[in-house]
Amino acid sequence: MPRQLYHFWTTAAARKIRLALAEKQLPFELVLERPWERRPEFLTLNPAGEVPVLVEADGRVIIGARAIDEYLDEAYPDLPLIGSDPAGRAEVRRLVEWFDAKFQREVGDLLVEEKMTKRLSGLGQPSSQAIRAGLANIKIHLEYLGWLADRRTYLAGDAFSRADIAAAAHLSAVDYLGDVPWDDHPSARSWYARIKSRPAFRALLADHVPGAPPPKHYADLDF
Amino acid sequence: MPRQLYHFWTTAAARKIRLALAEKQLPFELVLERPWERRPEFLTLNPAGEVPVLVEADGRVIIGARAIDEYLDEAYPDLPLIGSDPAGRAEVRRLVEWFDAKFQREVGDLLVEEKMTKRLSGLGQPSSQAIRAGLANIKIHLEYLGWLADRRTYLAGDAFSRADIAAAAHLSAVDYLGDVPWDDHPSARSWYARIKSRPAFRALLADHVPGAPPPKHYADLDF
Repeated sequence: MPRQLYHFWTTAAARKIRLALAEKQLPFELVLERPWERRPEFLTLNPAGEVPVLVEADGRVIIGARAIDEYLDEAYPDLPLIGSDPAGRAEVRRLVEWFDAKFQREVGDLLVEEKMTKRLSGLGQPSSQAIRAGLANIKIHLEYLGWLADRRTYLAGDAFSRADIAAAAHLSAVDYLGDVPWDDHPSARSWYARIKSRPAFRALLADHVPGAPPPKHYADLDF
Repeated sequence: MPRQLYHFWTTAAARKIRLALAEKQLPFELVLERPWERRPEFLTLNPAGEVPVLVEADGRVIIGARAIDEYLDEAYPDLPLIGSDPAGRAEVRRLVEWFDAKFQREVGDLLVEEKMTKRLSGLGQPSSQAIRAGLANIKIHLEYLGWLADRRTYLAGDAFSRADIAAAAHLSAVDYLGDVPWDDHPSARSWYARIKSRPAFRALLADHVPGAPPPKHYADLDF
């Protein structure tokens, strides 16, 4: 059995693990899971009913973006995605939490979940109030991201890390909707252009959700 | 300067770090922060404006429950709160994420935030719909917790770990409101009784939020 990753296209947490696996040059197969279907076999695998779930070639199951993130660096220490000094590692994890918790709550839930997940799942109508809030909130996140990018080579410091992966994964899910105002945020844009042109990003740019194609600039490296 | 932890009483993420520090026998001072006040000095410390924030005696600042959690085991490997084998560590982190993300969203946000934070901050009225949903959701979490406790010595396996700390921290915040239906969940109750009687738990049981005293059983080890 090859290594398998249960994912859903626009779930940022799963995109993050796709990027991490590719950066670490660990081959894997994607298994598409629609979490709202609550498939009994999938709930047996992960009682939380959420993606991502990683199933290793030997059958070992690693559940949840946080556990997989740390597991990959522990089990495959080559090509590390987090530094070795405790303070630097804490800065990477601070930014990962920023995107996984704060950005997800203030932007992802309000745009991706409302516009994409509700449409694909047929569970309810998008709330225009939520979408307006998400579009306002993303500006603040892009400003902070640009502020970091102006001062550091990569988001958490000198080295590419899980912080860049988390930020890019979350932004790419919103970018798939065409809702990232890149023109107003040149520093964030030039950071994203660098991350987007990494080989690990290619598979994400080829994503095509049936019935919800991405905007033209989504896969464009010179957007 | 002694080690300082910025916290708010009923914020489960901060309770978790109080427990972890006490389990690791690392002395610290508590600094009470009301995040909704958005104090400029605190926002300089943590631009996310959230507790917990740990300031080490040497001035090093570690931000966010996730980063602090991992940092404590990396910087102070004695009395480890997570095992050494990658699969076991992944199981600990799966359960930590279960409580920090899923329980917080399905229970904590609906009960603690609505009933306590809104009251103390004066920001809005509690939503009775949210509270009803939180009271329904907690049953499912207590069932799952009891299911684990029936099969394992501690939540993630044979050893006490961050999984027990996370679960107990989140439950203790709800228990402060008197909203945990212990009578209906004997397995969860007997697990919680064991965790609650650990010395590290004592300081939490002495908490007394001004204007919002805990119910009698909150500090009772034989509840």
